[in-house]
Amino acid sequence: MNGKKNERAINFGAGPGQLPLEVLEEVQAELLAYKNAKVSILEISHRSGDFKKVIESAQARLTQILNIPDNYKVLFMQGGGTGLFSAVPLNMMTTGTADYIVTGSWSSKAAKEAAKYGKVNLVVPKTSQYTEIPDRSNWNLDPNASYVYYCDNETIHGIEFHDIPETNGVPLVADMSSNFVSKPIDVSKFGLIFAGAQKNVGPSGVTIVIIRKDFIGTAMKICPSILDFAVVAEGNSIHNTPPVFQIYFVGLVFEWILKNGGVEGMEELARQKSQMIYDIIEKSNGFYSCPIKENCRSRMNIPFRIKNDEKLENDFVSGAAALNMLQLKGHRSVGGIRVSLYNAVTLDQVKQLSNYMIKFYEQHKN
Amino acid sequence: MNGKKNERAINFGAGPGQLPLEVLEEVQAELLAYKNAKVSILEISHRSGDFKKVIESAQARLTQILNIPDNYKVLFMQGGGTGLFSAVPLNMMTTGTADYIVTGSWSSKAAKEAAKYGKVNLVVPKTSQYTEIPDRSNWNLDPNASYVYYCDNETIHGIEFHDIPETNGVPLVADMSSNFVSKPIDVSKFGLIFAGAQKNVGPSGVTIVIIRKDFIGTAMKICPSILDFAVVAEGNSIHNTPPVFQIYFVGLVFEWILKNGGVEGMEELARQKSQMIYDIIEKSNGFYSCPIKENCRSRMNIPFRIKNDEKLENDFVSGAAALNMLQLKGHRSVGGIRVSLYNAVTLDQVKQLSNYMIKFYEQHKN
Repeated sequence: MNGKKNERAINFGAGPGQLPLEVLEEVQAELLAYKNAKVSILEISHRSGDFKKVIESAQARLTQILNIPDNYKVLFMQGGGTGLFSAVPLNMMTTGTADYIVTGSWSSKAAKEAAKYGKVNLVVPKTSQYTEIPDRSNWNLDPNASYVYYCDNETIHGIEFHDIPETNGVPLVADMSSNFVSKPIDVSKFGLIFAGAQKNVGPSGVTIVIIRKDFIGTAMKICPSILDFAVVAEGNSIHNTPPVFQIYFVGLVFEWILKNGGVEGMEELARQKSQMIYDIIEKSNGFYSCPIKENCRSRMNIPFRIKNDEKLENDFVSGAAALNMLQLKGHRSVGGIRVSLYNAVTLDQVKQLSNYMIKFYEQHKN
Repeated sequence: MNGKKNERAINFGAGPGQLPLEVLEEVQAELLAYKNAKVSILEISHRSGDFKKVIESAQARLTQILNIPDNYKVLFMQGGGTGLFSAVPLNMMTTGTADYIVTGSWSSKAAKEAAKYGKVNLVVPKTSQYTEIPDRSNWNLDPNASYVYYCDNETIHGIEFHDIPETNGVPLVADMSSNFVSKPIDVSKFGLIFAGAQKNVGPSGVTIVIIRKDFIGTAMKICPSILDFAVVAEGNSIHNTPPVFQIYFVGLVFEWILKNGGVEGMEELARQKSQMIYDIIEKSNGFYSCPIKENCRSRMNIPFRIKNDEKLENDFVSGAAALNMLQLKGHRSVGGIRVSLYNAVTLDQVKQLSNYMIKFYEQHKN
């Protein structure tokens, strides 16, 4: 196609993140005219038969990937995770109160947004240092809550749930933006799952929502149409013009996942990749240190410090960039280094980073 | 690049609409690696220096194109025009009431959405047949309205304002989705202008907002963060992850407009293109008929009937498609034919359609 392929680096960014090269190449090849449509996918009518196929096949592939039961619907929305922070209470806070399990920045933001629309009950004690999921015996769950909300993977702090919280029958809502389709999940345990595309499945600009059908149609009267699940569901996500390009793109990524072992394949890959990095951290005698408790360390985003030394960390980041490994600087609120290992990051790319980490350790350990 | 270029037809669709081929080719060429960033524009961090340049140059180009005064800000939002239907009252209905000039489907939908958040005063009499802008001497403007809302070009009905409504000092809000940057406008006369990109400036998935700065910071408490102008403005449209690709794309279209004579060039082109079609309609002795009053006919979307004969209209559409002229079917609520002539539709393409219309008339006039 063109020389640009050879100019690509390894992208360890936390999102927008690296996308599968095969998908990018397919998109590039048909960018001027989509299949037999004679217009670009960027120009195609959202009410055309061609786009109907695009959206329905994306939904069918995701249904296959996650084995989504019949009583759920897949929606494509706009506004990212932040849009869902409002949409969830606006549609689902029917008892006037909801439970929030705050384990990092993103669930904290979601709780703050929900408080605009009703009472927010904090399930775990407030903290500014997110390093663990507090023990479940101490959770303060409200049986009257409309739902229990949590973030399955905190992108900034690197905290991931490795099992599904028990809520004693209260519907569960999960933000899976940064670990979406990276492991099998039992969808039937959830009232709603959402994910911004820009981590594991596509470019920014679309949010995927998997919703149990009985949560469609219960929005507050003040709910804006674009955030009303009933409005979005009624037109199969084309009540108003959707982000056509992003829906097309995530459909191709879903196809790529199916070709590469499905979520089981993604999970095995994520296990191997993250293990490689955590092993180096553990064997470095404190040179590298990850503040997160071992039972909730994320397979997607690994934050660590290097001797708590900012100068050394900057050297690490710039040395990596010189070797074409990009976006390793930690989030400004946490500092240090962050390695994001989304589905499209290959094992070989992580090996390159591992080698660099070992070399850097050898050079600077004393 | 590839053969796909030769597969392209002429797209007279109402939106998503045809985009400039030069821009599509540029996007295609650098899709795997954006300039020197070593990652695709689809993978680039919205907080990177590269993207900062993308967004700031898009804002600067639009400011140049429309000569936007200093006391205005350009925002990029999500949710399309429908998102703004909610955002406008949620941010600006500070007196509890607003005026809506309903001249077609889109302003009607906006008024309906606004009624969720306060009192909507209808400025012109209710109608189900949108064929004119009622005479201004009969307008019922409320001096206590927070703002006066109107749709500058009704995409479905083909009604366009050819001057700016006088509101006696009440702030003016305009939906310019389907005639954005197709003519010079005096921005200083508006409190807010918005436009979904997917007509004149890009793919669907981003909404451009031009807002006078004193309307930032007055949102109701129930306003979702993604629709709160203050939240969006504070981070220069990256409070949360924006639709990076669409912002990049519209920036390139703005550059293309500047290279092609600016809005003055676009206006002259729109005048020539629409005149060509209206002339054929007028000279057809009623064979082609446009129901819209002459003083408010749209230069962007031209709806017409062919002898009020559906069968003939279907023949027209399929005959055009056989000649690679697509998307000429009228909106389902109006019927007939609709020709959309957005900025990227060339004069030569409209000439091809004109020739076809003349031939079709000759063949079927008796």
